[in-house]
Amino acid sequence: MKPSTPKGTRDFAPALMRKRNHLFGVLREHFELFGYAPIETPAMENLDTLTGKYGEEGDQLLFKVLNNGDFLAKADHEALDARDSRTAAASLSKRGLRYDLTVPFARFVVQHRNDINLPFKRYAIQPVWRADRPQKGRYQEFYQCDADVVGSDSLLYEAEIVRLLDVAFAELGLKVNIKLNHRGVLQALLEVSGIADARFVDFVTALDKLDKIGRDKVLTEMSERGIESDAAAKALDLLGAEGLDATDGPLASSVVGRAALADLARVRQLATSPGAIPPLLFSPTLARGLSYYTGCIFEVEVDTSVLAQAHIKMGSIAAGGRYANLTEAFGGRDMSGVGISFGAERIFDVMEELELWPDEVSVGRKVLLAAFDESDLAWAFAKTNELRAAGIAADCYPEAAKPKKSLGYANQCGIPFAILIGERERTSGRLALKDLATGEQVDVDTAGAIARLWG
Amino acid sequence: MKPSTPKGTRDFAPALMRKRNHLFGVLREHFELFGYAPIETPAMENLDTLTGKYGEEGDQLLFKVLNNGDFLAKADHEALDARDSRTAAASLSKRGLRYDLTVPFARFVVQHRNDINLPFKRYAIQPVWRADRPQKGRYQEFYQCDADVVGSDSLLYEAEIVRLLDVAFAELGLKVNIKLNHRGVLQALLEVSGIADARFVDFVTALDKLDKIGRDKVLTEMSERGIESDAAAKALDLLGAEGLDATDGPLASSVVGRAALADLARVRQLATSPGAIPPLLFSPTLARGLSYYTGCIFEVEVDTSVLAQAHIKMGSIAAGGRYANLTEAFGGRDMSGVGISFGAERIFDVMEELELWPDEVSVGRKVLLAAFDESDLAWAFAKTNELRAAGIAADCYPEAAKPKKSLGYANQCGIPFAILIGERERTSGRLALKDLATGEQVDVDTAGAIARLWG
Repeated sequence: MKPSTPKGTRDFAPALMRKRNHLFGVLREHFELFGYAPIETPAMENLDTLTGKYGEEGDQLLFKVLNNGDFLAKADHEALDARDSRTAAASLSKRGLRYDLTVPFARFVVQHRNDINLPFKRYAIQPVWRADRPQKGRYQEFYQCDADVVGSDSLLYEAEIVRLLDVAFAELGLKVNIKLNHRGVLQALLEVSGIADARFVDFVTALDKLDKIGRDKVLTEMSERGIESDAAAKALDLLGAEGLDATDGPLASSVVGRAALADLARVRQLATSPGAIPPLLFSPTLARGLSYYTGCIFEVEVDTSVLAQAHIKMGSIAAGGRYANLTEAFGGRDMSGVGISFGAERIFDVMEELELWPDEVSVGRKVLLAAFDESDLAWAFAKTNELRAAGIAADCYPEAAKPKKSLGYANQCGIPFAILIGERERTSGRLALKDLATGEQVDVDTAGAIARLWG
Repeated sequence: MKPSTPKGTRDFAPALMRKRNHLFGVLREHFELFGYAPIETPAMENLDTLTGKYGEEGDQLLFKVLNNGDFLAKADHEALDARDSRTAAASLSKRGLRYDLTVPFARFVVQHRNDINLPFKRYAIQPVWRADRPQKGRYQEFYQCDADVVGSDSLLYEAEIVRLLDVAFAELGLKVNIKLNHRGVLQALLEVSGIADARFVDFVTALDKLDKIGRDKVLTEMSERGIESDAAAKALDLLGAEGLDATDGPLASSVVGRAALADLARVRQLATSPGAIPPLLFSPTLARGLSYYTGCIFEVEVDTSVLAQAHIKMGSIAAGGRYANLTEAFGGRDMSGVGISFGAERIFDVMEELELWPDEVSVGRKVLLAAFDESDLAWAFAKTNELRAAGIAADCYPEAAKPKKSLGYANQCGIPFAILIGERERTSGRLALKDLATGEQVDVDTAGAIARLWG
């Protein structure tokens, strides 16, 4: 009966935590540098807030929290007696665990509208919960790292997100490509291909699968979704045409298309400056999230050369876009925004595969002090505290022990240095600082030990 | 229909987040300095793990997560039909939200026993959830900040916790007293007063209320709990006697008492060194947590002089102790440990009352760049990114605007500096850096602006 975490959830032991903290720390640092401010929202939201925001499938994946106390007394007895789980759930549960950070952010903006100044730029790094079937790399609890700005439709913010992505991934050591598209590009494509505007979501839903299932199956799906075959084929031909670029081409005959291409050109211009040329790719087939994004959309992928070198496959590691109506569902108006979500779990996996962690990330305790003899233990502990006061993460082996035992502990724990304390040390104040990786030992006073341990 | 967070939960807007991050950051830094390593456990635990660990009252305060899918099909139909909420709950819910960080830690240690080295020192800073009735200062979601070491019974770790408390609270600017007691002191007290060992929990439960309800009511409660009145009175007299100290006195006639007093003396000796004398108080009436602590217990209070000065009342802001059997409930053996829990929410409240936040805590964006004219916007944005690359949290007002508007935004947001960008700046490269608090303005080049903004 060994205890365990629930299926689909994980513990993070210290070695993993240090890597995750490095990743989150780099993202946090860049969010702050780019002027985004931290907020946190509660893990539980009212189900009113969550339900209906993620489509029917999403609603089924919400974790619901059972009402407390005598919850059956106030439940929907008819539904209970009919064993109708879906109907009964609404009367058994008023709250759910957050499913993403975007809906709580929209709720936050409307709830605190009078306390925030627009444009409001916030970031959040918090876990979310989804009752997905657990599988390799997919968990029921995982972190999202989002930055969004709301209250302005300036394209400067799209450009800012491009810069943020460029700089943050460079700092993490990951070579990436930032794919960019615009809802207007695809709307114009429908227009010039003769596909009705009402088929927009059908078109982009099928198009989004192009990489995975190929042109023929996409055409089949479009046809099944009521899009006329010749028109669909024409649209795909246009998308594949060489002439389609971010500034000109067949889409320029559409008013919507011209506006979208102008937006994309402006974003590229703003995001590019001497010495800083972000790896921006215009990707007209990029359609993800277009059921809610209303302007530019972004998707970041690890550069294929990097993936090939490490023999791994990996989808997008960050994505986002412009939404004109973030707060509409909560009664907010005129609140255009743009945001980006870093896929922290995937970024972690790539960094792990590519061994991109800085050396110092793995070090917690820098040095272990250990006494041979009971009579030296208090002195060793006092010396440990002296090192701590100097900013060194130092630890003291808790009992008098043979070096084999105390140094064995230091080695097992990955503590890089040790200082054995005996009568000589206690009377002379000199310390033998041992590098456990090389075996090298130097004889130093306390100030010398501190200087070396800082280095 | 304004949306809101669930009752008993809170949003944290940026100003609050920055203060909380400061507090958590100081604690994290000190945990690391003292050799504790970070872990995280999932928000949801199996109810098997949680139930029965917090007493019957605690079990009632667990948030339970409704099973997903067609949960009624597999529910206890008899209990449902009888509207027996308590029995039905077990069949409707397999998981609950963690109630504290100690039980998940014990579960972690047993589950990962083969992957950790003893002594294992960990800290965790994570939210916990309790279905308590919300009231002022009490929330259903709140953070705990715990450090524990497991796998050693060395008193060095008790002393280490005393040092940690002393140093961490000093860094936070809070004058505190660290109250210390030992289970053996109270066991000995029962022994010399002629109270049966079996009444231990009754005795300490009543004693724990001494400060709140006074001697007479404590005696009444002890009597109701089956403790003979004369013996109870004798015990309270002894506790109040001047002769009772941490090294000698009436308890020394008991073997258990002598051992406990020796432990306390050793902890005081180890925790004290030249230049570091922690504010330790032997508090023989301290009885909190003695239903599970087996050795030393700690409780930290803000110094009364500080509280009086601010006209506030505040209970303990950190507490902990030694537990011989942390992992027993999960089948672990021989795992003595000692831990401390920082009451982050209360510490936050005291720091807020006393205005102990460093000035720099409130600053996010350091400078706002703003263009008068559309033709200068791209240049202002490029300059903003240049400052960011130099490590300055800079922001660019997203559209060309009159200074009244852009500087008004900076003021509202608490951004301390602004740089207005016009044709002069764009052509000369000189920047007018304005201190918005003083109105003072200096004419500098970019390097000069960076140097001043770093200062």
